[in-house]
Amino acid sequence: FVSLFEEQRLKLKDLCLLLYFYIISSCHATKPNMLNVHLVPHTHDDVGWLKTVDQYFYGDRNDIQHAGVQYILDSVVDQLLKNPDRRFIYVETAFFYRWWKQQSSSMQQTVKKLVNEGRLEFVNGGWCMSDEATTHYSAVIDQMTMGLRFLNETFGPCGRPRVAWHIDPFGHAREHASMFAQMGYDGFFFGRLDYQDRARRRRDKEQELLWRASDSLTPPMADLFTGILPNGYNPPEGFCWDQSCDDPPIRDDPDLEDYNVDDVVRRFLAIANSQAIVYKTDHIIMTMGSDFQYENANLWYKNLDKLIHYVNALQANGSKVNVLYSTPSCYLQELHRANLTWALKMDDFFPYADDAHDFWTGYFTSRPALKRYERISNSNLQVTCNQLEVLSGPASRKGPFGEGDMVLILVNLSLSEKAMAVAQHHDAVSGTEKQHVANDYARRLAHGWQRCQVLVSNSLAALSGSSAERMYCDNLNISVCPLTESSKKFSVNVYNPLARPVTWPVRLPVNGTAYLVSDANGKSVDCQLVFQVQAPPLGFTTYSVSLLQDGPPPASTQHRTPTAIQNKFLRVTFDPDTGLLSSLSNLETKQTIKLTQNFYWLVYNASDGNNLQSDQPSGAYIFRPNSSTPFLISKTAKTESIQTSGVQEVRQWFAPWVSQVVRLYTDSKALELEWTVGPVPIDDDLGKEVITRLDTSIKTSQYFYTDSNGREMLQRKTDFRPTWNLRQSEPIAGNYYPINSRAFIKDDVDQLTVVTDRSQGGGSIHNGSLEIMLHRRLLYDDVRGVGEPLNETSNIFPKGLVVRGRLLLSLDRPPSAADAHRPLAQEVVLQPLLTFTDGDLHPNTQLEFSGLQAALPPAVHLLTLTQWDKDSVLLRLEHQFQSWESKLNSQPVTVNLQKLFSTLEVLGVSELNLSANQWKDEMTRFHWTPMTGTGHLNLFIRFYYISS
Amino acid sequence: FVSLFEEQRLKLKDLCLLLYFYIISSCHATKPNMLNVHLVPHTHDDVGWLKTVDQYFYGDRNDIQHAGVQYILDSVVDQLLKNPDRRFIYVETAFFYRWWKQQSSSMQQTVKKLVNEGRLEFVNGGWCMSDEATTHYSAVIDQMTMGLRFLNETFGPCGRPRVAWHIDPFGHAREHASMFAQMGYDGFFFGRLDYQDRARRRRDKEQELLWRASDSLTPPMADLFTGILPNGYNPPEGFCWDQSCDDPPIRDDPDLEDYNVDDVVRRFLAIANSQAIVYKTDHIIMTMGSDFQYENANLWYKNLDKLIHYVNALQANGSKVNVLYSTPSCYLQELHRANLTWALKMDDFFPYADDAHDFWTGYFTSRPALKRYERISNSNLQVTCNQLEVLSGPASRKGPFGEGDMVLILVNLSLSEKAMAVAQHHDAVSGTEKQHVANDYARRLAHGWQRCQVLVSNSLAALSGSSAERMYCDNLNISVCPLTESSKKFSVNVYNPLARPVTWPVRLPVNGTAYLVSDANGKSVDCQLVFQVQAPPLGFTTYSVSLLQDGPPPASTQHRTPTAIQNKFLRVTFDPDTGLLSSLSNLETKQTIKLTQNFYWLVYNASDGNNLQSDQPSGAYIFRPNSSTPFLISKTAKTESIQTSGVQEVRQWFAPWVSQVVRLYTDSKALELEWTVGPVPIDDDLGKEVITRLDTSIKTSQYFYTDSNGREMLQRKTDFRPTWNLRQSEPIAGNYYPINSRAFIKDDVDQLTVVTDRSQGGGSIHNGSLEIMLHRRLLYDDVRGVGEPLNETSNIFPKGLVVRGRLLLSLDRPPSAADAHRPLAQEVVLQPLLTFTDGDLHPNTQLEFSGLQAALPPAVHLLTLTQWDKDSVLLRLEHQFQSWESKLNSQPVTVNLQKLFSTLEVLGVSELNLSANQWKDEMTRFHWTPMTGTGHLNLFIRFYYISS
Repeated sequence: FVSLFEEQRLKLKDLCLLLYFYIISSCHATKPNMLNVHLVPHTHDDVGWLKTVDQYFYGDRNDIQHAGVQYILDSVVDQLLKNPDRRFIYVETAFFYRWWKQQSSSMQQTVKKLVNEGRLEFVNGGWCMSDEATTHYSAVIDQMTMGLRFLNETFGPCGRPRVAWHIDPFGHAREHASMFAQMGYDGFFFGRLDYQDRARRRRDKEQELLWRASDSLTPPMADLFTGILPNGYNPPEGFCWDQSCDDPPIRDDPDLEDYNVDDVVRRFLAIANSQAIVYKTDHIIMTMGSDFQYENANLWYKNLDKLIHYVNALQANGSKVNVLYSTPSCYLQELHRANLTWALKMDDFFPYADDAHDFWTGYFTSRPALKRYERISNSNLQVTCNQLEVLSGPASRKGPFGEGDMVLILVNLSLSEKAMAVAQHHDAVSGTEKQHVANDYARRLAHGWQRCQVLVSNSLAALSGSSAERMYCDNLNISVCPLTESSKKFSVNVYNPLARPVTWPVRLPVNGTAYLVSDANGKSVDCQLVFQVQAPPLGFTTYSVSLLQDGPPPASTQHRTPTAIQNKFLRVTFDPDTGLLSSLSNLETKQTIKLTQNFYWLVYNASDGNNLQSDQPSGAYIFRPNSSTPFLISKTAKTESIQTSGVQEVRQWFAPWVSQVVRLYTDSKALELEWTVGPVPIDDDLGKEVITRLDTSIKTSQYFYTDSNGREMLQRKTDFRPTWNLRQSEPIAGNYYPINSRAFIKDDVDQLTVVTDRSQGGGSIHNGSLEIMLHRRLLYDDVRGVGEPLNETSNIFPKGLVVRGRLLLSLDRPPSAADAHRPLAQEVVLQPLLTFTDGDLHPNTQLEFSGLQAALPPAVHLLTLTQWDKDSVLLRLEHQFQSWESKLNSQPVTVNLQKLFSTLEVLGVSELNLSANQWKDEMTRFHWTPMTGTGHLNLFIRFYYISS
Repeated sequence: FVSLFEEQRLKLKDLCLLLYFYIISSCHATKPNMLNVHLVPHTHDDVGWLKTVDQYFYGDRNDIQHAGVQYILDSVVDQLLKNPDRRFIYVETAFFYRWWKQQSSSMQQTVKKLVNEGRLEFVNGGWCMSDEATTHYSAVIDQMTMGLRFLNETFGPCGRPRVAWHIDPFGHAREHASMFAQMGYDGFFFGRLDYQDRARRRRDKEQELLWRASDSLTPPMADLFTGILPNGYNPPEGFCWDQSCDDPPIRDDPDLEDYNVDDVVRRFLAIANSQAIVYKTDHIIMTMGSDFQYENANLWYKNLDKLIHYVNALQANGSKVNVLYSTPSCYLQELHRANLTWALKMDDFFPYADDAHDFWTGYFTSRPALKRYERISNSNLQVTCNQLEVLSGPASRKGPFGEGDMVLILVNLSLSEKAMAVAQHHDAVSGTEKQHVANDYARRLAHGWQRCQVLVSNSLAALSGSSAERMYCDNLNISVCPLTESSKKFSVNVYNPLARPVTWPVRLPVNGTAYLVSDANGKSVDCQLVFQVQAPPLGFTTYSVSLLQDGPPPASTQHRTPTAIQNKFLRVTFDPDTGLLSSLSNLETKQTIKLTQNFYWLVYNASDGNNLQSDQPSGAYIFRPNSSTPFLISKTAKTESIQTSGVQEVRQWFAPWVSQVVRLYTDSKALELEWTVGPVPIDDDLGKEVITRLDTSIKTSQYFYTDSNGREMLQRKTDFRPTWNLRQSEPIAGNYYPINSRAFIKDDVDQLTVVTDRSQGGGSIHNGSLEIMLHRRLLYDDVRGVGEPLNETSNIFPKGLVVRGRLLLSLDRPPSAADAHRPLAQEVVLQPLLTFTDGDLHPNTQLEFSGLQAALPPAVHLLTLTQWDKDSVLLRLEHQFQSWESKLNSQPVTVNLQKLFSTLEVLGVSELNLSANQWKDEMTRFHWTPMTGTGHLNLFIRFYYISS
């Protein structure tokens, strides 16, 4: 290719060089033979938590929590202007963007000057500070890209954050570190980690370390310098000068009462010296701020100015402590200059406990309905919508159905992308927000989807040549679709967002007795309640459905439950006495495991005698059953069975509020367990946490495996942590880990993989066992700030939320298991989009379409295809196999970009970093030396900036 | 005289003219045919309440109350600079002065510009916003003068407040209004008045009125336009945009959730229109602020800017409401332009009730010890100290005893004057502050007195020619004075701050059996426990005391209580059965009244069945006994009697915690009742309010009389208010009034006047009766913010404060009673200062001195004599008789200033207004037309600015 971007790149290169020198020079000088204390003024602004994101922005509902981000930014800018020594960092672009839009151009110029001079520095810079336990990597990359793009386009290189900053998330995922490394960050700081881990690291001076965040990328590709902040993200005790704090201000007028300069300086020096003992260099960092602080920045800065003045004044008397305004990147630069070696970390920071009985493992499952809605939205609204915009071009943005949800004009970012981005926040999809805020996130996603539908309709009209009205049946999950229930003839357009052909079962609610379903070629399709659809990669196909026989739908064929169901791939047996699963066989590999599955509940009982050690209850964040034996919901299940040509189902009832459908589709290699849980009964005044547990004959030896943000798999071991000698104090909660897309257990011969449809928590407490928490209904607040028990009801479910979901089970030989679960999980993450058209289609309608010239190889996932600006699109291709997991697919792959798309002509390509805010070959990150050897590589991801 | 100030005056005159035009032009234009809503951004900064004045200034102890005045002023100045339309008013110079001292000169220039442009306006401008019920006029004038002087010298005429602003005090004294008028204020605004009074005034549109504040000064000398603010001093409901409030901000970005501009505008218009109905003009005022608000002024101004914008934008659609930033003086100017007639008010605004059972009459007595200490401090520290500085000149400020408490350099205002000034605050001497704050006020007064003692010692050294060490016995009230208790020979210097010769009894603690006391002429003085001293006007005399016989002091001569004691002026009889007083006779006028006196307590009993109407308890502010019958402490008193040549005493014991000494000095025309109350017992879990009650044969017909701030007397009538038809709901608390220096009851022939030694509350509930509340000890907070029960203990009194005080009773014919009680009250307010020197005095010591060439006539009180700057002093002479109260003394008097002083040569004189911040003949106040006729005149006060 001949790059069309050379000119632009040269320009950028100059700027980047400038930026490099600039960062060096904008940091305050430190003093070589002293302890340098870096004071970092900062605010932590949740993109929704106790209040909605917009309430936080405006400072509305201050009765709930005093917080108004518009005023924070007003105030900080004012105060930075008062003293050029002052520094501030800002993190959440979701808020900064809202504020920026409302500023006059002269204020915008002023802020640019502050950014250019390093007085206002962006850190992290994503749309939000994403949750690490319950997010999917694709949505995280998108929200980071959106925030960083705004900064890049608004401020240029000086606005590019060099430091990732996740001071609040409740545990840290390795995949996040890997992404940050690939986004070009020089380092990463966070605040929360297990209390035992911190104690060990303090002792060994390992609170600053090098995180090797992938076992597949060649170091240092996914190496990330990681610093653990000394005090969470709060200021040291006694030094909080925000309006929300009560610490004594510096009273330095000797004419007034209570002159306290000597006392303040003495206390500060004591804290600084004791902090220096547990870190390696002559530099320490202090986070001078906290949640929504700096709304009146004068209070902070006025006292910090005085603190710096009076502490440094003592140097004249021989004091060896030097205090300065600083930023994380200035601090990081000093650590880098120290040229030391750093401890290497290969695992992650889950689970997080802040005390012996306080494991933050409940939020892995909290608000399961929101977690699922976020995942569906990612598929429909972020992926499908973006892809169709690219594939159909300008026609999507303005067509017969109105103006779509455009991303082109940055100041008017797409509603759907903003909705998805805020949903990644660590109090959004995590489920740790107040109920009204959860409702707000869901409403934003729904509004985004409404706007997206216009774009989808326009796109499909352009691509199919038919502008017939298109209907969306968003309630198919509860079998509601007015069109299919009433129409005698309609067609179904199936759009496939994956880059390979995929087959799905489709079930539609109908009121007729018999229907004829035919595919795009007019060939009739076997149809009995469910029919299989197959759509081309990155494209659609169309099925038409005609009523053959009016009258009531055929009564489901009900059978006595068979002792086994099977298709050509799998065989499943049931225990005739209990109605439970009893075994699973892979007929191709000829492997069989014993498999029992049942539902249980765990409970925190406030009046339980076992509560002597701690009265910490389960809540939105915390999982704390105070008995380690879960309660069985029912020993047996009432069952019923339905068999059609497309699917075999065994329906199991465990209780009025727990049921399951065990489902085997004819063409599927996975067994589906569709669970329905709720309303969880609370008439016994006990909150309940409901799990499903698979007990197998696999010899797990305490090991099991969970994914990190839906991407690489990590090995877990019960009652064990890789980097310290664990004293386990919670036998269940302390063994739970986040499951974003899958978990598996294995031994030498068998691997049972469970693919989930949303983020959940789970563990392997017993040999051969894997449990997943499905739903939680709790009666206590867990005293971590949210101030509400997690007790979800709604208009539709006034007696408690009913939640439904699916687990897909796959039994394989370990060396080839990934060949099955990688594509399987992608199909769950990126679902086909069904749209409906009533009546006959116009004869000229194009019934089938693919945006690709050919399917991508199995190892390659088309992660992102989105319009970037008028003439270019952003493409992300991802190698989706870990280096060790598949003989077949873990190898490097080559993709010919020129021959990739069917509707786009590729004029030029430039490779970018993962977050698309820097040219890949200009990513010059700090080099850090680990204390021990290196990892190994195979996986790669490429990001292309393509001009069509 | 030839005035030496002409040049200066001319200069000032020009400035005043400029000022006049300036005020006109700095106000925003209003719209003639619209309702103009004046938004007045303001903060109300208590000079101590829940926190000390310095804690409030710095924002220390925000755990008690979030408030930091340094930040308020920082923030407001910043925000005023952002938009020239914005306005702010500032009130309390005690805080502004602290802040100003700490500003850079460039910031000071910026603030001057804001003041000159009318964007920052000072209102009230005294050192504090004084209490009106418990302050003495002399201390109020001094604190106002101090604050206004700072503004005058810092900002010139543009800094001169034109409006008095007492938005918080709990009831309003007529004498305050009179003072404000004489200080040149154009108008006065306040926030609190009786709820029935407000209802009536709202109905009759009389919330703006003309207060004729003296029955003796010729109108309009003491006429003061008075506006009652619509909502206390708070913003209308829903429109509080301070950081301390939770009202919804204006959310005007249509892209964000919850756009609310239409809702806000609708609510605002509804409030404005309903407010306009109860006021007379097309202008209404809204106070946009409250206690310690505007610490983050951006929140307020950002939303006010939007409010003004959106409300006025509706004018294009025909709206007739115009909103503008304004100030009280701009609002007042519009009222003046309206050229209407205003209801005339002749009485005062006491007592204040905010509901039927919520009378703020408890604080008239709260903290009786602090109230007394404030009064003593006024005498010693403010009057004596200032006078001696003038009389001895520079020698006082730097002499053998160090550097005294100087007033000369304004930026370093005298500690003692600042202490006295803050003590006038409406949560200081009022007794409505927290205990630790009361301690702070007392400590400040004590520190001030320590600094003053240096000045007094220097002065007396200079005037007497002796630099012998001088000792101060501040604990004479509890009979402690180490020098007199141990020395065999010492001398006593008696300084008289009054401008006429006065005789006092002196009693000193000694350990010898017999002493010789001789006066300045060497003449021995009759001495038996007590000796009489007489000191020249504004001067001193010296007594020497020598031990005649060592050994224990003579045992008090104890007698059976006589049935009567008498001197040449008075006869007092006792009931032999009860030990109580039974009659009082004036032997000169030959009048006798029946007089019984006893002690009672009132109680708020939370468990009392009478509490159905209200559960409001008594507290620091509120007096609410829930039985209207006081409890008698004892029907009888145990008595004991002591008679010496100087004094006759009958000592009465009513309970272990209540006793009294009835005392008749040989040369005195007043009967002294020295009461001792405490520790008030609370072991019955009942708080108690202790009163002394005088029951007489005087036919009072519901009338009685109390003073206003120690100056003019006002007529009171039980269960009656002069300006509305009272529905009395609290038979005792609703009939209490403040007594600052005296109260009397009378009929056609007899007047019994009681002079108090501090501010107290009292009433006349029954015919012939006068009761005064002496002490309060309470177990509940009264829910008006102070958050503490008024339950005083101390290190010395861990079981509860013991309080001692004096009432002086005088029985006279009504037409001449003032001839006795005016000088009597002055002697109690301004006490002699005793200083002690051990051993023999140097023979050259000048034993006697008077600063006056001759005593002033009885009608004239020397109110102020204080050094103003190096070459001039401020003199205030006051006619101390009301026009109607004395045939002899209510006449005009002439004083020859040239022949007044013995040590000062008068070079020039200029007359000023009462607060000394304006030349008298340049005081041009707005003229206001009352609805009804005028009052009448006789009293005058002259204020002279004298160069020595």
